[in-house]
Amino acid sequence: MRNILLDLSYLGTYFFGFQKQKNALTVQGLLEKTLEDITGEKVKVVGSGRTDRGVHALSQICNFHTNSRLTPQEFEKALNSLLPPQIRVNHALEVDENFHSRICAKGKIYCYFVWTDRILPPFLLNFAFHFPFSLDSERMRASLNEIKGKHDFSSFAKAGSFKGNPLREIKRAELVEDPPLLCFLFEGSGFLQHMVRAIVGTILEVGRGKSNRGEILEILKRKDRRLAGPTVPPEGLFLVKVLY
Amino acid sequence: MRNILLDLSYLGTYFFGFQKQKNALTVQGLLEKTLEDITGEKVKVVGSGRTDRGVHALSQICNFHTNSRLTPQEFEKALNSLLPPQIRVNHALEVDENFHSRICAKGKIYCYFVWTDRILPPFLLNFAFHFPFSLDSERMRASLNEIKGKHDFSSFAKAGSFKGNPLREIKRAELVEDPPLLCFLFEGSGFLQHMVRAIVGTILEVGRGKSNRGEILEILKRKDRRLAGPTVPPEGLFLVKVLY
Repeated sequence: MRNILLDLSYLGTYFFGFQKQKNALTVQGLLEKTLEDITGEKVKVVGSGRTDRGVHALSQICNFHTNSRLTPQEFEKALNSLLPPQIRVNHALEVDENFHSRICAKGKIYCYFVWTDRILPPFLLNFAFHFPFSLDSERMRASLNEIKGKHDFSSFAKAGSFKGNPLREIKRAELVEDPPLLCFLFEGSGFLQHMVRAIVGTILEVGRGKSNRGEILEILKRKDRRLAGPTVPPEGLFLVKVLY
Repeated sequence: MRNILLDLSYLGTYFFGFQKQKNALTVQGLLEKTLEDITGEKVKVVGSGRTDRGVHALSQICNFHTNSRLTPQEFEKALNSLLPPQIRVNHALEVDENFHSRICAKGKIYCYFVWTDRILPPFLLNFAFHFPFSLDSERMRASLNEIKGKHDFSSFAKAGSFKGNPLREIKRAELVEDPPLLCFLFEGSGFLQHMVRAIVGTILEVGRGKSNRGEILEILKRKDRRLAGPTVPPEGLFLVKVLY
């Protein structure tokens, strides 16, 4: 069977997350249904990972196996004409039969946007977290440095969600400032559920002076979700790139 | 009576335009209702001008008269807490009793965004016109130059909508390029209904090579809407500033 890779962008606001669900519009569910309409086959779409409800993707990678003779370009055209404009196929590509979007992924880049001014412009409503407080950038950068490296991230995973190996390596944890817009950028081998959002929530508390330097390492060591800050809302989060 | 000026931003997608209508959510209607809730008085909101359904405002100016003793800051706070996040009061200001948002306006600045790449990112869905064609910037700039100055703009007004003096002066008509994003910027003494969108539609035809240099002046001279290009959709249009 042929193996087709899709590079997707989608507006998280429009979907109930990536993963297929009964009676809810999801990225995986909609892609599988549309590919079945195109090929006449039952199709299973494998994503590089799930994104939660409300989380956006600038570039999400997924793949599916098919007996269809359509070229990748024909899949791209057919999908973009049948799918709603809230999801776009940036490109399609035929890949090795053994390529698996999730298992083969070496890492991911996420960005989280925060708007720190008193008033959130209506145009950013679904694209940034409104946090109208004065923040100490130096403290936040010091904490971001503590996040970097190989750690057990249990303290930053969704409470109760966790199964398997909680070890992840964070290679980049950066704050890009264009006041009043802040962008937190993370590159890692992988991320536990809610991990980016729990890290950002914790870093913002540091920025407001509610936590102290060194505390991130302590929170990591204790492996207790209750010690980290709140999980910030999904609309500020963008899956930027999947690395292979 | 006191006269309060409001500087507003709003997401055009959320409203059926600025002007009050029965059974439809409009900027004026929602503001008047919310101000009545705040003051207990019937309030009439005067805008600098209407924006059509789907058109956004980065800064729209309006004013209202009231007997209320609330300070402008209190109005700002009360409105922002009662209004939906799709409309924000950037600031409120007490002004001279005779100030009138529309009559006193000396000019306006509008921007129109066009996305020229093959695929429209889902994030721009309500914020730019998708026009995936190769365009000749030099030809478009030459035509924008012909638009500048004092003209009878009947050829660029909504067919059948027109009443009164069709003379307007365009001071700036610029193309700002950040490919594949284009921004058309217009500053003028005022604009007829659909005027910016009909001008952009005409300039895009010039860019595709469907019209010739010099044609804009000819279209203006003939005062016939049928000679200009199509009206581009509202979602690319932003009222940027009202000049006083």
